[in-house]
This record gives sequence, structure tokens and C-alpha cells, in this order.
Amino acid sequence: MSVGPPVLRLEVEATDGPARAGVVHTPRGSFLTPVFMPVGTRGTIRAIGVDDLERLGAPVVLANTYHLMLRPGDDTVAALGGLHGFMDWSGHVLTDSGGYQVFSLGPKVTDEGAEFRSTYDGSRHTLTPESAVAIQQRLGADIQMVLDVCPSLPAPLEVVRAAVDRTAAWAARARAAHLPARLDGRTGQALFGIVQGGVDVALRRESAERTVALGFDGFGIGGLSVGEERAEMLPALAAALALLPPDQPRYLMGVGDPVSMVEAIALGVDMFDCVLPTRLARHGTILTAAGRINLRNQRFATDPEPLDPDCACPVCARWSRGYLRHLLQVQEVSAQRFCTIHNLHWLLRLVERTRTAIVAGELAALRTEVASHWR
Amino acid sequence: MSVGPPVLRLEVEATDGPARAGVVHTPRGSFLTPVFMPVGTRGTIRAIGVDDLERLGAPVVLANTYHLMLRPGDDTVAALGGLHGFMDWSGHVLTDSGGYQVFSLGPKVTDEGAEFRSTYDGSRHTLTPESAVAIQQRLGADIQMVLDVCPSLPAPLEVVRAAVDRTAAWAARARAAHLPARLDGRTGQALFGIVQGGVDVALRRESAERTVALGFDGFGIGGLSVGEERAEMLPALAAALALLPPDQPRYLMGVGDPVSMVEAIALGVDMFDCVLPTRLARHGTILTAAGRINLRNQRFATDPEPLDPDCACPVCARWSRGYLRHLLQVQEVSAQRFCTIHNLHWLLRLVERTRTAIVAGELAALRTEVASHWR
Repeated sequence: MSVGPPVLRLEVEATDGPARAGVVHTPRGSFLTPVFMPVGTRGTIRAIGVDDLERLGAPVVLANTYHLMLRPGDDTVAALGGLHGFMDWSGHVLTDSGGYQVFSLGPKVTDEGAEFRSTYDGSRHTLTPESAVAIQQRLGADIQMVLDVCPSLPAPLEVVRAAVDRTAAWAARARAAHLPARLDGRTGQALFGIVQGGVDVALRRESAERTVALGFDGFGIGGLSVGEERAEMLPALAAALALLPPDQPRYLMGVGDPVSMVEAIALGVDMFDCVLPTRLARHGTILTAAGRINLRNQRFATDPEPLDPDCACPVCARWSRGYLRHLLQVQEVSAQRFCTIHNLHWLLRLVERTRTAIVAGELAALRTEVASHWR
Repeated sequence: MSVGPPVLRLEVEATDGPARAGVVHTPRGSFLTPVFMPVGTRGTIRAIGVDDLERLGAPVVLANTYHLMLRPGDDTVAALGGLHGFMDWSGHVLTDSGGYQVFSLGPKVTDEGAEFRSTYDGSRHTLTPESAVAIQQRLGADIQMVLDVCPSLPAPLEVVRAAVDRTAAWAARARAAHLPARLDGRTGQALFGIVQGGVDVALRRESAERTVALGFDGFGIGGLSVGEERAEMLPALAAALALLPPDQPRYLMGVGDPVSMVEAIALGVDMFDCVLPTRLARHGTILTAAGRINLRNQRFATDPEPLDPDCACPVCARWSRGYLRHLLQVQEVSAQRFCTIHNLHWLLRLVERTRTAIVAGELAALRTEVASHWR
């Protein structure tokens, strides 16, 4: 059940067990799933440009409501054409609600919302379920997320339970705030609910049921990959997925390590975002078919090989590890750009391979391959 | 008179007074003059990649011997294919001799050479006319420069006189060190001599005569734009140019402000390099047809216009001042990249326009136009 008139549709093209290969259709166009969405925190992927992102063929970019509402401000973004006009980006954009960043600042939280101080200038701001919807509407993303409560793990059961309750109450308010613009056709934006519940299987089930009962265009699974082990994460994820409608997209928030992504895809997840590939890149940690390498290592100083000999990215096509290590060592920012392009290409390609594997009914072999090179 | 068998040839296609529109032919290919050469200090233009530089159509890039001999080391560059292989750059490369940077460190200078400490790790190094030739040979540039002595201005006459004498003595040694590889065909590199003499017209003439008498493939005019007024610089420049062979290229080192470049082109200069457009870009100072603008200014926060409405660069084609200012304000390195691309495009295009004006016999009108918008 979507929020008002449908604006987003998932077409499942193939399955391999619970894993799905799909296409998401929106008023902007369509994108294939499973999909990895690079994180464009401040209206750009850090260290690269929209031109680079286009060449990478990434279909969806995530932008951070918290950062953009403070700098340059959602009104400024709206004045410059919303995120698509501002960035000159014709692909899809998903905005988070700002909750994740706000909760990391230790805000004052009431039933009404969360009050916090800006990390830019110390000014006071309040984010409520309603204002998060309004801000994301001004930012103009194709998909917006409800404001949720995301505790760090491990957390006492009563903290996780309170987060589930407040997340459900806020989800209902976000949906009510979003509904009028949908009913009168003022927006083509989709709104996703978020499932919380920590690593407690019963709470995950309850949160999934309550979120589904409200009705959304898709579902985020939040509050995972926030300190727990993968062995704790996957059962909680599976419990939530089992109760989500099969004909709507499922988005595992903030997860981007290769093993977790492939395992989550095997459980039926369609969408991912994570700062991991871009953050690692800026520090010279490179994703390759054989696992991570640290490009700062002296042994790469005169290495004529590309970052990953099996990679078809534009950086691996041209430059040696020796050259890229040099740029990194002398702190040329182009090193950050080139490593970011490579890591994103690598992860986007891995997710494309999971899709191909699902269509071919061969996801199990890919899971084994990834598990043999990555932890 | 070149150094040994000719490897570089200037074909003058048109003149407008002393100004010349030419083509420089080398074993690598050819490039049009007047030409502005972006500074690729450490084997890359700061903030952009070789891919960006190719899209800008810059035909020649300058690389800094001082930085590259220390990081990653000329042996490492040689092992990775010389600068062309290292950077994967098929255009021309000119290397400076390292002298300019070394002299800014207050080295211990003797007739033999200059001893200095690395700014990277404090280690001791010596640069001599002979070692500068050998290092540049390993770096593999198409054009190398002799080691010269470049005093800051203002300087006492005896300091400038001593610099002229030592520059001449070192030029002879550099030429002798370079000659064997030319005579037996081991290198296609060209070697340029350098004219010193401060702002003293008589010393400029003497330095030009002595450098020309030795015989080089082209001539740098060094030691200008190092603290003096433009009104002092231009007569000294003119004095040197009058004595340089008309059929060989003249390269005014380190000058890149629009007025000085256009005035120097009018006097007969063919080549320029300068960090100005790229350094300004990284701090948000933008070159436009109407003069410089400071993109950090609040008045650009919601400005939907491109950096320069008259510019055809790939940045002006897509992004607003508002978006680029935002990237700059939140310290996204892509702001540095985009501003660098614009400023380089702008300056490369200005130099192209001087060439077109020379061919049309209309350089005077362009000088007037540039002087009306720039100081």
C-alpha cells in the first residue's frame, strides 16, 4: 500500500530464493535493483563531481537533509531548482530524513521532535516528522525518508523499544504531512517508512508490521550496521524483510561492505547506501577483487599495475598504482578523486554482478566468491 | 642556433608588429603559440586530473623538477615511463630546472651549484647545472630548462650582475652536459637557455647576448614578475626580446596575469607558465571577461548564473555560481576542481584570442579590451 496515488513501482524481473532483480519506476524514469546509491552528503559525492558520477553510471544518489538544511539551506537549494537543478543531475535522488546525523549529536528529543545545535555555527534547530517532510519536499528528491529514531548498538532493550514506538508515531505524522501534496498531485516524490528494532527479532517484526500497516511507497531498514556484528545483523534484517510487501522496494540503510551487501541481497534487499567506498578511497584504501589494499604502502611506489587489474573503470584504464600512490602521498586532491571513482565503480559493478547472478540463478556462487576475498 | 641537431622548430605563421602567431614542432608533435602552459607541479595540475586537462585542450604542461626529484624521485618517474607515462599524458611537457624553487629556500650557492634542504624531510641535496640536466632527462620532458640564478626584486645591481654571470657560466655547463645525448641521438629533448638581468636594461641585453651566443633550442626570460612593477618589467623584457633570434621560441617564465601576458605577447613572447589561474581558483577567485570575482561573496549564494556568462567551459555550461559557491563554502574539493577548470579554460581561451588577433592584425584592440577590465 503506497502513500496516496502511486508514484513509484517495483517490477520484479527475476528471483533467486528471496533475492530479487527488479526495476523501480518513478516519474523521473527507472533504475535497476539491487542498486548501490553513492552518498552525496552536501549536494555532491565527496571528492568527485556530478560529471564523474554520470560517467560511472550511478543511477541514484543519496543526499543528506541534515547538512543541506544547514548549508546552503533548503530554501537556497529550492531557489536553485531543487537538488536536480542545483547539482545539474538528471538521475534519481533519495534524501535521508536528517535523523541519523541529528541523533549522533545527542539532541534533546521529545515526542514533538529533536532539538539540536548546528555543527557549522552552533545555531539551534528543531527537526520534527513534519518539518523533515517539508524540508525534503523543498530539496526536491525523488524519494524521501520519514524521520526515525536510530539508537547506536548495543543498546538496552527498553531504548530499542522506545525507538520503535517513537519511530512508528513519527512515521504516522510524516505520512499525514506528506499526504495532502500527494492527493492533490503537487508532488511526485515517494515517501519511505523506516523499520527499527535493533538486533531484537521480535522488535524488528513488530516495527515492520506497524510500518507496513501505515502504508508507504517503500521501506527502509534502519538502525543496522551501527556497532553490532554481522551475525547479529542478518537475523534481525531477515525478520524485518519477511514481513515487508514483496512488491515494494526494501532499502538497507548505511550498509556498504561487500559481504554484508551480498548477504543482504540474498535475503531480499533492493537498495543500499554507504559512505564506506568513498571514505576509504579518500584515505587510499582501495577495493579490489582480491580484497582491500592500502595504496599508501611503500611496495606500490613503482608498481606499474592498475589499482585492480580486473577493473574496467576509467582510472584503472590509465593510471598506475605508482602514480596514484604518489598523488596520495603528496596530498594532491586528484588522488581522492581517482580513488573515489575506482571504489564507486568497483562497488557499483559488484552490485550489477549480483543482479546478473540473480537472473541466472547463480547468486550462491557469487556469495561464495565474495566471502572468500572479504571478511 | 640550436643545441646540436635540431629537435624543435618554430614556424612563424603571422606577425602583428613584434607579436607572432606560430607553431612549435617537436618529435612529439606540434603546438600553437602564443601558448599558456598550466603548472603541473607534482605530475598533475593541482585539483584536477590529466583527464580534465585533456578536455581543456591544453597542449603543454609544465612540471617542477624540484618537487619531482624529491617526491616521488626522478628514478621512480623514469621507472614508470617518464612524465608522459607516469601521468599518461600525450601532450607536451616542459620541466623547469628546479632553480626557482631552490633559490626560494635560501640555498648555499657556490660556483659548483646550489645545496639545499628538502622541504619534505629536511634531507640535503645539491643541484648543479649538470645534475639538473640529468634529472630532467630522467623525467623525460620534451623541453628542459638550464639551471639559472634568479634573484628576487628589488635586488642590488651587483646581485643581479652576479646572477647574470653565474647563469651564463651554468648555461654553458648545462649545454655541454646535454650535448652528447643530442649528438648521438639518445634524446629528442630540447634545451632552453635563460636570460636574467633583473629590471636593468643593460644587464638584460648582456644576458641575452651571452645566452644566444651559447646556442639553445629556445630562450626563457626568467627573473621577472618576482616583485617588480609591470612598468619596470616590460622595458627589461623588451630589451631581452630585441636580441633573441626571431626564429626560436621565447618563453616568459612565471607570468600569467592577463594584462602582462597580452602586453608580453605584443612584445613578441611565445610561451608562458604561471600558477596564478590555478592558485586563484582554489581560493574561489574566478577569472571572467569583466575581471576577477570572489565566489565566496554572499551575493552569489543564490545566483543562478554561470561563473562567467561569456564562457564556454564545461563548468559554465552546467553549474551556477550558487552551487559552486556552496561547494567552496563547505570545503568540497570538487569546488577547487571546477574553479580550476574554469580559470584554465578562461586563460587558455584568452591566449587563443591573442593568436587570432595577431593573425587578423587586431592585437591592439584586444590589448585595449583587456586593459579596460584588468589591472
